[in-house]
Amino acid sequence: MSSGLKAETNSLPPLSQEALRSKPSAIREILKLTQQPDIISFAGGLPETNSLPTQLIPELHEKAVKDFGQGIFNYGLTEGFMPFREINKYYLKEQGLVVDDNLNKVLIHDGSQQTIDLAARILIDPGDNIVVEGPTYLGALQAFVPRRPQYLQVETDKYGIIPDSLKDILTKNTIKMLYLVPNFQNPSGNTIPWDRREKIAELAEKHNFYLFEDDPYGELRYEGEHVAPIQSLIPNRTIYAHTYSKVLSPGLRLAAALVPNHMVDKIVEAKQGSDLSAGDYVQALATVYVRDGYLKDHLPKIRAMYKPRRDTMLNEMVEHFPVNWVYSKPEGGMFIWVQGPEGADTKEIFKLAVNKKVAFVPGEGFFVSGGTNTMRLNFSFSNEDKISTGIPKLAESIKESAVIFENK
Amino acid sequence: MSSGLKAETNSLPPLSQEALRSKPSAIREILKLTQQPDIISFAGGLPETNSLPTQLIPELHEKAVKDFGQGIFNYGLTEGFMPFREINKYYLKEQGLVVDDNLNKVLIHDGSQQTIDLAARILIDPGDNIVVEGPTYLGALQAFVPRRPQYLQVETDKYGIIPDSLKDILTKNTIKMLYLVPNFQNPSGNTIPWDRREKIAELAEKHNFYLFEDDPYGELRYEGEHVAPIQSLIPNRTIYAHTYSKVLSPGLRLAAALVPNHMVDKIVEAKQGSDLSAGDYVQALATVYVRDGYLKDHLPKIRAMYKPRRDTMLNEMVEHFPVNWVYSKPEGGMFIWVQGPEGADTKEIFKLAVNKKVAFVPGEGFFVSGGTNTMRLNFSFSNEDKISTGIPKLAESIKESAVIFENK
Repeated sequence: MSSGLKAETNSLPPLSQEALRSKPSAIREILKLTQQPDIISFAGGLPETNSLPTQLIPELHEKAVKDFGQGIFNYGLTEGFMPFREINKYYLKEQGLVVDDNLNKVLIHDGSQQTIDLAARILIDPGDNIVVEGPTYLGALQAFVPRRPQYLQVETDKYGIIPDSLKDILTKNTIKMLYLVPNFQNPSGNTIPWDRREKIAELAEKHNFYLFEDDPYGELRYEGEHVAPIQSLIPNRTIYAHTYSKVLSPGLRLAAALVPNHMVDKIVEAKQGSDLSAGDYVQALATVYVRDGYLKDHLPKIRAMYKPRRDTMLNEMVEHFPVNWVYSKPEGGMFIWVQGPEGADTKEIFKLAVNKKVAFVPGEGFFVSGGTNTMRLNFSFSNEDKISTGIPKLAESIKESAVIFENK
Repeated sequence: MSSGLKAETNSLPPLSQEALRSKPSAIREILKLTQQPDIISFAGGLPETNSLPTQLIPELHEKAVKDFGQGIFNYGLTEGFMPFREINKYYLKEQGLVVDDNLNKVLIHDGSQQTIDLAARILIDPGDNIVVEGPTYLGALQAFVPRRPQYLQVETDKYGIIPDSLKDILTKNTIKMLYLVPNFQNPSGNTIPWDRREKIAELAEKHNFYLFEDDPYGELRYEGEHVAPIQSLIPNRTIYAHTYSKVLSPGLRLAAALVPNHMVDKIVEAKQGSDLSAGDYVQALATVYVRDGYLKDHLPKIRAMYKPRRDTMLNEMVEHFPVNWVYSKPEGGMFIWVQGPEGADTKEIFKLAVNKKVAFVPGEGFFVSGGTNTMRLNFSFSNEDKISTGIPKLAESIKESAVIFENK
């Protein structure tokens, strides 16, 4: 049948160039392998399912219908459900963002992935230069691909992006946009300190480029002090993306974007053509969640759940990982980043680990180029027991691969 | 401030060519005018809010959590929530669609607007010819704009698209896709009979183009017999879009697309880059809604609510509209299409009507070109009293404009 279908398909009109360019996400193929229930997965970027405030939903529903009426089940505005946009203005101000009607607007999107996609649509033309970190969030690369930009990869260390590396790029290139995850970056776990944020803002002003500040993990800090967003320094050239996937539920697909006024109409038009609007119903639930203090109550619980998982993973790594393998010690978020010695092959290690029923994400996919000796470990989705069982097995796989590597 | 901001903005990097090309939807601007509570609006395409089964949600929620677990609040698969995809396979088969794993797959999107957007992304290159009806759904035109196609407008009558007009286009042009709303079309209300559907399918095979069959209203039939979808004749070249916005709730943003296998991976990749996935939670609610027979119970109620509204509107039009104004008599859906004599200007009439607190959509926006003497009336959102009050006022506005017109 499939061969018959192929024959048929060949005679059909071709798909678009954009379709022919697109490739399946490496991580997605890997996550499929990790669906088996008996596997310990450090691969995904998922919150702990038991951390999701499911049991609150009936209460949120009752209040939402009472306060906002049945209209929340009908069509809504592309900009977002007004009470949700309003509550986000206050919430984002609390996080240190500059929120000012004369300067920018809050728009509601179906997860911050959509904010990245819409920003790419309205900002990037084919051939435009965008700077990304090495490593960077691969969902961003996926959203950029259809725009066919030129990627320039800036070097990073344990404090994130290295300003001199960025300066070096800017002396040689005109860039349209810099994409950053400044807090507990996915995948590195690193946070950019304030002095570097100031330098980045200065460079944005001096070399006239836009910043996409992606901040899905900012609220998940387990130690240290909150660092103010870069947006607070250059609000007129920053699109800031906040998501409710980590602090409420990924299954509601809700994010709040803070967008400079001169981009607002174009982003709204792009979203309207894409899917009309986010759903008013889930926005109404989230409005009550933030408005009535459920979020404030919930955040300490998630932090209290994830911190010991991070600690357990780091302790197990200290005990079991080879000394020539280094890794990040994130102050928050969901990920630990691991780098092996030159020549280490984490794709090879992945195969060995999956045989031992342990999974992670090989790091190569997070780079525009390089990264074959790196891996990303997620600590939010597995409890301490699973982490204590899984990390030694992963360490074994690393050692076995080293042996294989030497024997080659 | 705004001038100060403008100055600032001018010194910022330019937006993309796609952003500069995009325009606000005409209808959206009109709908803003009709937000006033005291206005009788025949403008929107909204379901009656009281028809939305809000009160069922707690029951659906309880069953969904019981049957599917807390995982519905975590990240889901880009293809959609598996039980929802499965139930849609059965449901779409019942509607006469060809659903076959060897041929096509059901994918879940955030409303069928997203299905149009994703189809446009994977099928249309700049300059490709797309055939649309005159008039057509303007949300489709909006989704196509970023792909920069050439539009070819096919003529229609009260049975929808005229096959000879399509044949004529095909002898002169190679086309990539035909976009149709075959049942109770938005805006015309017309339904394409079976013999024309067969001709369209023959032409698709002979001239080798794709069909986008958009079917948001198929279940809202108030009289006559269901006509089988064109997809049943050419499943390998048809993307079929079914939405839950009219039969459950627009506020949940859910649609099921039936996609030929050779397009599936590309649509999934495009959606993943756009917004990762639709929300599993609302998909789980909708699964229970269809699975446990709530939909089957609900459909007769909506039909019983909308049919008398259609009848009332048509009766009022017979009584009050000038004889040289003609209109459709739809067997279902939500819209009546009105055409005035040559030279009538429905934009002018709109202004007069809004002063009388009655709104509609001038028809020009539904055409690639022409249509200045047409208008779209929605009968699903207003009850019989409002319709009986609004239509005579609209008729007055038409007569006044005719006077103005003659005095010019």
